Amino acid sequence: MMTLTELVSSLLAGHRRGLARAISQVEDDGPEAHALLAALYPHTGRGHVVGVTGAPGTGKSTLVNALARAYRAQGLTVGIIAVDPTSPFSGGALLGDRVRMRDLAGDPGVFIRSMATRGSLGGLARATADVILVLDAAGFDRILVETVGVGQAEVEIASAAHTTIVVEAPGLGDEVQAIKAGVLEIADLFVVNKADREGADHAVLALQMMQGLAPAAVRGLAPAAAGHHRPERGRGADHAEPGAQPDGAWLPPIIKTVATRGEGVAALRDWIQLHGAYLRATDQLARRESARAASALDHILCDRLRSILLARLPEGQVSACAETIARRDVDPYTAAAQLLSQAGLLQ
Amino acid sequence: MMTLTELVSSLLAGHRRGLARAISQVEDDGPEAHALLAALYPHTGRGHVVGVTGAPGTGKSTLVNALARAYRAQGLTVGIIAVDPTSPFSGGALLGDRVRMRDLAGDPGVFIRSMATRGSLGGLARATADVILVLDAAGFDRILVETVGVGQAEVEIASAAHTTIVVEAPGLGDEVQAIKAGVLEIADLFVVNKADREGADHAVLALQMMQGLAPAAVRGLAPAAAGHHRPERGRGADHAEPGAQPDGAWLPPIIKTVATRGEGVAALRDWIQLHGAYLRATDQLARRESARAASALDHILCDRLRSILLARLPEGQVSACAETIARRDVDPYTAAAQLLSQAGLLQ
Repeated sequence: MMTLTELVSSLLAGHRRGLARAISQVEDDGPEAHALLAALYPHTGRGHVVGVTGAPGTGKSTLVNALARAYRAQGLTVGIIAVDPTSPFSGGALLGDRVRMRDLAGDPGVFIRSMATRGSLGGLARATADVILVLDAAGFDRILVETVGVGQAEVEIASAAHTTIVVEAPGLGDEVQAIKAGVLEIADLFVVNKADREGADHAVLALQMMQGLAPAAVRGLAPAAAGHHRPERGRGADHAEPGAQPDGAWLPPIIKTVATRGEGVAALRDWIQLHGAYLRATDQLARRESARAASALDHILCDRLRSILLARLPEGQVSACAETIARRDVDPYTAAAQLLSQAGLLQ
Repeated sequence: MMTLTELVSSLLAGHRRGLARAISQVEDDGPEAHALLAALYPHTGRGHVVGVTGAPGTGKSTLVNALARAYRAQGLTVGIIAVDPTSPFSGGALLGDRVRMRDLAGDPGVFIRSMATRGSLGGLARATADVILVLDAAGFDRILVETVGVGQAEVEIASAAHTTIVVEAPGLGDEVQAIKAGVLEIADLFVVNKADREGADHAVLALQMMQGLAPAAVRGLAPAAAGHHRPERGRGADHAEPGAQPDGAWLPPIIKTVATRGEGVAALRDWIQLHGAYLRATDQLARRESARAASALDHILCDRLRSILLARLPEGQVSACAETIARRDVDPYTAAAQLLSQAGLLQ
C-alpha cells in the first residue's frame, strides 16, 4: 500500500504505476482523491490541454491518434483521455480504447485513459477535469481530451481545455450541420476531416459562411499581427486571415485533414501551438484558468455543503423527505426549507 | 400584474394566458418561481409524461406532431416541450418550433414550448422538469418532451419522463447505431421511423439483437401475462413477446412508423398507454416518482446551501478565492475548506 507521499513522488517521478493508481483514486472520488488532488495541484498548469469534439462519423479518434503521433515526432509526451458521454452505462469507450491501444501501444511517451459516464454528466465533466490535473502533474506536455458529440455535454467537458477543436466531415447530412452551428462559439479551431471525400470543400465553405455571420469574423479584416508562425492554408483573399486578429480576437482557422493518412495533421499541430501562444500573449489564458477554478471550487463547495447538511440531520431524513414529495404530501421547495431549518441553517 | 393566487387560479382554470405567464416565471427561476411551483405541486402527478429522444435525422419532431394528433383524435389534451441541449447559445429550437406551429397551430388542446440551454445542462434538465410540472398542473393529459440526441444530456432530461421512447431510422450509419447501444437501458419503447425506407428491417433486427444481449430479454421467454390489450406487431416466434414479462420486467417493443404519413402512430400511442398501465400495475411508477422527487430536492438544497454560504461570507470572497486557485497559490479543496470554516459551517 502506497502512502499519499509515496504516490505523489511516484507520479511526479514519471512512474507509470503511480500514474495509473492516482487516476483510479481520482475516479473513485473519495476523501483520498481530494488529498491527492490537493497535493498534485501546485504541480499543474504546465500541460497544454486540447479538447477534440465532433459528431459521430467525423473520425475524431483517428485524428487524435494521428495528432499524438505528430507530437511524438517532436519528442513531446501525450496523455489522451477519451470521454464518452453518450454511453452512460457501459461499453462504448472500451471498444474505441482497444482500437487506439493497438495503434499507440508500447510507446512510453503516450498514456491513454477511457472514461464513460458514471452517474450524472456533471460528475463526468468533473472527473475528466480531475484526470486532466493528474496527467498535467505527471508532466505530459500535451493532454488530448476527446469527446463524442457536439452537444451541451461536450461544451461542459471542453470547458476544461485550453484549445477546443471541433471536427467536421463531409456528407454527414444537413441536419447534423445545423446542429453544429451551436458549437461555433466554443471552437478555437475547425477541422474538416476526411477531406479527400466529396463535399469537403462544401463543408469548408459552410463553416466560412457561419463564421461570416459571427461577430468575431466581422471584427478584424486585416491580416493578423506579424511575429507568429502561420501555417499555410488556402483561403480566399476576401476573408479575414484566421488566427489572432489586430483587435485581440481569435478567428478560428479551418484545417483540412485526412487523418487516416496523416495529411494536414502537422498543420493542425502547428495551429494548436499558435493558439496556445495567442492564449499566453493575451488575457485569454488567465480568463480560462479563472473560469475553470471557479467551476471546480463551486462543485467542491456544493459537495461539502451537502455533507454538512446530511451530518446535521437524522440518518434517512432526506430520503424520507423525498418520499413525502413523491406522494405529493409536500412540495419540494417547502420540504427543502424545512430540512434546512431543522439543520439549524436558516437562522 | 397578477398575484400568485390569481396566477394559480388562471392556470388551474385552463387559461392560456396564465399558463404562458407561469412557464415564463418558472424559466426565470427566481423566488417567485419557487412559490409558484410550491403552489402548483399538489395539483401535479396526473399527466402521463412521455420522453421522445433519438439522433438527428430520425424524424422525431414529425413523430411528436403525429403522436399529438393521435391523442387529439382521442380527445386528449397535449403539452409539448421541445428541448434542444445541442444548441447552448441560440436558434435551433426556434426553427423546429416554427415548423411545429404551422402544423398544430390553432388547436386549443395543444400547447407547445421550446427550450434551449441557458447556462449548464443541469439547469436545462431542471427547467424542463419544472415546465413539465406546470403543464401537468394545467391539466394536460399527455406531456411530450422531445430532446435532440441520445447522449447523457438526454438521459438526464428523460429521467423526468414516465415513458421514454428512443427513435431510430434506417441508414444513419453504423457508428450512430453503435452509440445508440448506450441508450438501450433507458428505452421503454423503440420506434423505427421512416420505416418505408430501405434498411428498416435491418434496423429492427439490430435492435432485436441488442435486446437479445440485454438481461431483460433473457429473463422472460414466455408471452406476457394476459389482460393487457396488446397492439399487433410482426415478430418472430423465437423472441419473447415485448411488453410486461411474467417476472414483472418490461421488454421494450419495437414499433415501425412512417410519421409523415401517420403510419404506425396509433399503435405507438396504444403502446405508450400499455406502458403507463404497466407502470401503475407494478412498483415502477412509485420508483420513478421517488427518484424524481429525490433529484428535485437535491437540486433545490444545493442552490439554497450555496446562497446560505454566500450570505455568510464577505461579498466577492468566493470569486477572489477562485483567482488564488487559478494562480495555483492554493488548491481548490483546501480553499473550499477555508471558505466553509470562515462561514462558521465547519465546527
